Amino acid sequence: MSEFIAPLEVMIEAFRRLPGVGRKSAERMAFGVLDMTDAEVSAFTGAIESAKNAIHTCSVCGNITAGEICPICEDTSRDKKLICVVEDSKAVISFEKIKEYSGVYHVLGGVISPRTGKGASELNIASLPERIKENGATEVMIATNATVEGETTAMYISRIIKPTGVKITRLAYGIPVGADIEYADKLTLLRAIEGRREF
Amino acid sequence: MSEFIAPLEVMIEAFRRLPGVGRKSAERMAFGVLDMTDAEVSAFTGAIESAKNAIHTCSVCGNITAGEICPICEDTSRDKKLICVVEDSKAVISFEKIKEYSGVYHVLGGVISPRTGKGASELNIASLPERIKENGATEVMIATNATVEGETTAMYISRIIKPTGVKITRLAYGIPVGADIEYADKLTLLRAIEGRREF
Repeated sequence: MSEFIAPLEVMIEAFRRLPGVGRKSAERMAFGVLDMTDAEVSAFTGAIESAKNAIHTCSVCGNITAGEICPICEDTSRDKKLICVVEDSKAVISFEKIKEYSGVYHVLGGVISPRTGKGASELNIASLPERIKENGATEVMIATNATVEGETTAMYISRIIKPTGVKITRLAYGIPVGADIEYADKLTLLRAIEGRREF
Repeated sequence: MSEFIAPLEVMIEAFRRLPGVGRKSAERMAFGVLDMTDAEVSAFTGAIESAKNAIHTCSVCGNITAGEICPICEDTSRDKKLICVVEDSKAVISFEKIKEYSGVYHVLGGVISPRTGKGASELNIASLPERIKENGATEVMIATNATVEGETTAMYISRIIKPTGVKITRLAYGIPVGADIEYADKLTLLRAIEGRREF
């Protein structure tokens, strides 16, 4: 016989399409499904479909939400004058985890990338200048990733929102806390020197 | 907001129930689903449901199959006089990969285990003596895993099938090919010595 029977092979390849899942993991997951009861499998696929159907982007900030407006935009205690621009909702969760950021977010839904063919028009950028004015924002903190594409996108956004006169900041680059300088790459070390502060 | 909105949290926990999937991987997979189109999500959950519905155990050997009889039992070129007893279908695939084994299988569907509460009656054991007679089997190779539970199950099976007079063999234990003796555990090394063969 071929190594796996057809429907099993189709299921394995379906799991492989998920991010971070290799062939071996996909095989293990597929056999995990076969070990489940029918009810467990229904609950599993149901959870995925329900989430996909329920979750869409917040009409204000672009973050994921099950309602019309995301919980952060709905929260009146958040400082709407401080807007943090991030690539995606995963970054929002990272910021929320530290429980120190009290502003709001603007989720781009990606970065400008010749590699994936994504342009500025496909990102949630156009609404940002208007939102800055409406919120009476005093600062926009651009927190795209420290990659070439993240940098390009950050520069593009800063050019777009400059006319609003808002203060534009960028996350600090440097040595990660707890990391050994010995293992920092050259560029990170260079940025850490450039960004040094008085003791 | 709570770290994840409710439907996303439910989806993450659904992924976590799969074998070998931790919280971080489950989060990555869940966001992967959100990045898919609706059609891709349907294809994904559809592949899982189709596989689960189509796949059941072969009425002859207990291996997984989409038909009534599994491809190995249907294959008339396989030697039905040699039966390899394995714990599950994953073991069948491992044997098939080496492309050297020409006998058939008998898939138990687990091992006798006080831990999981599985007894001999819940395993595909009862049909084995009858199958040995029907096939006119000359050898049963017991290939359960080299664990306490696998050993217990192997001993139980050998007692059950002894009356048939068939030759009963067990896979060899020893140093894995390519492995350094230095890293072999004591028990493996002991078994390798016990099982030594003339050069």
